[in-house]
Amino acid sequence: MTWQETAAQYRAERDKCFPKEYLLEIPPPEDVLDVREVPTLPGVLSPVELEITESLTVTELLDAIKAGKYTSLQVAQAFCHRATIAHQLTNCLTEVFYEKAYAKAKELDEYYSKTGKTIVPISLKDQIEVEDTNITMSYVGWIGKKAKHTAVIAELLASQGAVFYCRTNMSQGLWFGEGYNNVFGRTTNPFNRNVTCGGSSGGEGALVGLRGSLLGVGSDIGGSVRIPAAYQALYGVRGSYARIPYCKASNSCEGQEMVRSVLGPLTVSVDGLKTFYKAVLDAKPWEYDPWTPRMPWSETAYNLVDHGEGKKLCFAIMWDDGVVKPCPPYVRALKELKQALLAAGHEVIDWTPYKSAEATELLMRFFTADGGYDIKKQLALSGEPQLGNILQRGATEMSAHELFDLCYRRSAFVKDSLDYWNATVSQTSTGRPVDAIIAPAGGGPPQPHDGHMYIGYTGFCNLSDYTSSILPVTAVDPKVDAKPARTDFYGEKDQQIYEQYDPEFMKGAPCSLQIIGKKYEEEAVIRMTEIADAALKKYRA
Amino acid sequence: MTWQETAAQYRAERDKCFPKEYLLEIPPPEDVLDVREVPTLPGVLSPVELEITESLTVTELLDAIKAGKYTSLQVAQAFCHRATIAHQLTNCLTEVFYEKAYAKAKELDEYYSKTGKTIVPISLKDQIEVEDTNITMSYVGWIGKKAKHTAVIAELLASQGAVFYCRTNMSQGLWFGEGYNNVFGRTTNPFNRNVTCGGSSGGEGALVGLRGSLLGVGSDIGGSVRIPAAYQALYGVRGSYARIPYCKASNSCEGQEMVRSVLGPLTVSVDGLKTFYKAVLDAKPWEYDPWTPRMPWSETAYNLVDHGEGKKLCFAIMWDDGVVKPCPPYVRALKELKQALLAAGHEVIDWTPYKSAEATELLMRFFTADGGYDIKKQLALSGEPQLGNILQRGATEMSAHELFDLCYRRSAFVKDSLDYWNATVSQTSTGRPVDAIIAPAGGGPPQPHDGHMYIGYTGFCNLSDYTSSILPVTAVDPKVDAKPARTDFYGEKDQQIYEQYDPEFMKGAPCSLQIIGKKYEEEAVIRMTEIADAALKKYRA
Repeated sequence: MTWQETAAQYRAERDKCFPKEYLLEIPPPEDVLDVREVPTLPGVLSPVELEITESLTVTELLDAIKAGKYTSLQVAQAFCHRATIAHQLTNCLTEVFYEKAYAKAKELDEYYSKTGKTIVPISLKDQIEVEDTNITMSYVGWIGKKAKHTAVIAELLASQGAVFYCRTNMSQGLWFGEGYNNVFGRTTNPFNRNVTCGGSSGGEGALVGLRGSLLGVGSDIGGSVRIPAAYQALYGVRGSYARIPYCKASNSCEGQEMVRSVLGPLTVSVDGLKTFYKAVLDAKPWEYDPWTPRMPWSETAYNLVDHGEGKKLCFAIMWDDGVVKPCPPYVRALKELKQALLAAGHEVIDWTPYKSAEATELLMRFFTADGGYDIKKQLALSGEPQLGNILQRGATEMSAHELFDLCYRRSAFVKDSLDYWNATVSQTSTGRPVDAIIAPAGGGPPQPHDGHMYIGYTGFCNLSDYTSSILPVTAVDPKVDAKPARTDFYGEKDQQIYEQYDPEFMKGAPCSLQIIGKKYEEEAVIRMTEIADAALKKYRA
Repeated sequence: MTWQETAAQYRAERDKCFPKEYLLEIPPPEDVLDVREVPTLPGVLSPVELEITESLTVTELLDAIKAGKYTSLQVAQAFCHRATIAHQLTNCLTEVFYEKAYAKAKELDEYYSKTGKTIVPISLKDQIEVEDTNITMSYVGWIGKKAKHTAVIAELLASQGAVFYCRTNMSQGLWFGEGYNNVFGRTTNPFNRNVTCGGSSGGEGALVGLRGSLLGVGSDIGGSVRIPAAYQALYGVRGSYARIPYCKASNSCEGQEMVRSVLGPLTVSVDGLKTFYKAVLDAKPWEYDPWTPRMPWSETAYNLVDHGEGKKLCFAIMWDDGVVKPCPPYVRALKELKQALLAAGHEVIDWTPYKSAEATELLMRFFTADGGYDIKKQLALSGEPQLGNILQRGATEMSAHELFDLCYRRSAFVKDSLDYWNATVSQTSTGRPVDAIIAPAGGGPPQPHDGHMYIGYTGFCNLSDYTSSILPVTAVDPKVDAKPARTDFYGEKDQQIYEQYDPEFMKGAPCSLQIIGKKYEEEAVIRMTEIADAALKKYRA
């Protein structure tokens, strides 16, 4: 069999797992770009399925479940049904195991219904192993493998009441910012199917974007949680290294532990962020993942004790990183958030970026340190071609001492960045350095498939191991986001992003911002994201 | 100049910094092996110098200082004087800057004497930079360099009241377990100058062992704090990666960040451990070292909340790691500590070691990953020869993907080790896994200079990033520690350590044990060390 045949056969087998009664008989034609309302059309979902999936926040759903309003089975069925529709609309799923979820739900309903114990369906990025399910890491050459264990994150979430029913699409080997690979094909953006869902956790973005899941788990080594969260107007967090356990999840370049990929949530409502972090940290992940620091959820940190109790915060806005000028809707989003925060009594100053180009260059050198050894090895298993355009995969493999030199250079850079941040104490009125940086999630709005993207706005957080969240703010509106005339480009990437920007084509695609805190400031960043979200809603009201 | 001449000239310049009046006119002859009492002989130190340096614990000295019993200058002079004697006896110092210490002390006495503010002299391993002092990293080729900054640890300790007056000897490039290099020569053990002080923080061991400092800072990547602490009957801690900030201290193989060297205290009294950790963590090191986790000193963890409040602990004794059988005095020490802990109401079970040989092999592969690139480069600066026998410096340099593979293998090993530890819950009566492992600090007692040593008993903690302390227990006593007949060796290293063991030659050399907790359990390990120390003292009383 050719690799194409192997992949097609695998997808056909997977497709048999979708219950026929869940499928749309007539999916919308391809030229319907905004498909967000499809699941709500009459006859698609049952009334209770719609009630469960359509408008609750994460904690509202949890409260309804705790109150016994729905059975576990009802909740599982509702999300399995809606996830199936989401898949028909955007091709977001890789593996489905609804029967496992139903079996667990029934078991719980039988034994625990009177105690109020039940389950919450959680979606997982394809790389996160669940024992006895298929694992491909999006490589054709892996087809046929079964996971022999469950990733620590999934074990811990299950211990806290999660049930798993599907896994979601990602970019080939996690290497670029879309949801596209040779096994499962391409995931599209439910806000505008002309543009990408982002990635590498693109399937999570599209699935949660269509509320086929209220909370999913993705991974981020350059922006891979934040970009799809941003591109689907979701909330998301990229926490610091290993705070959320990564152990026993698959990865590309296993053992590249210098810039660590991290796991994080993508969720429909801001309350999902704390819910996720608290659930995972309450399960004592450091007892199961040796890289996870022994740091329980800190309500003190969440209450911003190191940030003046949050009474008057000082945010600093990164208007432009000097490498790629953000497109108009991002500037509009930044201005609106600034006004909202000022109106809420906070301080907002400008952030002068710290050596953006060098940060991105350093990050890329880690990604290509093995000279493409890993990706080439994985592709060679089946002969499938390489996709994506982020990596210079022609890079020469480094030697150990060159890699040590790179680590040394990075550590010095990160120390200097920290000192630079601390020095902002002279620019604030709070007596503290800037409490958080606000930055765009990228240079341009969600790009056309196979388009250009720039990860500098997210990637410096991966290099410096800053905590960063995504706050949905606005969407491309051709009426107000006209393309300005520009000829003064910083460089090639800036010009590419500018030339690609097309407000009419990208219409309706979300433009979201990051709230960035220092290393291991997950609690504080989550709280500041809630504060910014509330400020924005109040300002608009 | 030859490298020998360069080094000799450098030492001669350094020697001019010792005040003549501090020097012993007639140092004891070389065949006086135990020199611990020399500083207490009549006329060597003044009565107040003796009072300050001879018998106080770390907190007693701090309390006396706070109470205004001594001036800052008196305290600084006492330790500078005693450190000079210690150096004459063991060759433990590298750099001395007493004048800086006196200047700071005078300043404080003038301005702060009425507020009770004063200083505590702290010694530093040679690699820890203090601005405007010489820095050689023990390489002849570095002679002439001045530190352009102060290491973060020194900055933070200074902010908490420390003053620096000297730095101490180490092994060439930190690569082996003695205090010996071509710049400063060899440091000997004040308990028995026939044997080594251990290393690589050997100068700290000898200096603190002679109370020329009550607390010094060393570094540990395979046992380099613990071995000299053990060899001089001191207390010491090797905490988990970066809990104590390493930033801006020099190191070998800079950028080898996979198995991280850590800084830790060597101190005369068990109360020095908490004092050191609390002082450093109270200074918020994560604001200055980007690799330091945001983990304040936890009094809750110190009170053993995760270990049944310490009421009944379960310790597990590693009698033998299956690679090198501990020599008789270690077995005697383990038995005595076991009885003391049982008498104090704790549980003591046997620890079955987890793949000791593989742990050491993995650790060594990291140490030699660059194929000796760094050490060769440093030695080539002057042409000085390589010393020590721990590293297989002929190892071939790895490529990036080989290093990734090694990291991956290590992470899997560490995860399995953690699961293995957790599984001991079935062997204890506490409902918890083993609270701490007790292990010898090495296979044999302090070895003859240039002798054989084995770092397996300490090194697995570096690989798995366990927290480990040193508890002084006993010393070689030829009357009870006779050499047994043995022919059943595990391997070459076991035979070497056995053959080297000579209770008469090693007479009086300390034999200490480790108390080992999980990753980032510094507070709990310090508390358990205090508990074991108290149990031992009570048992003997």
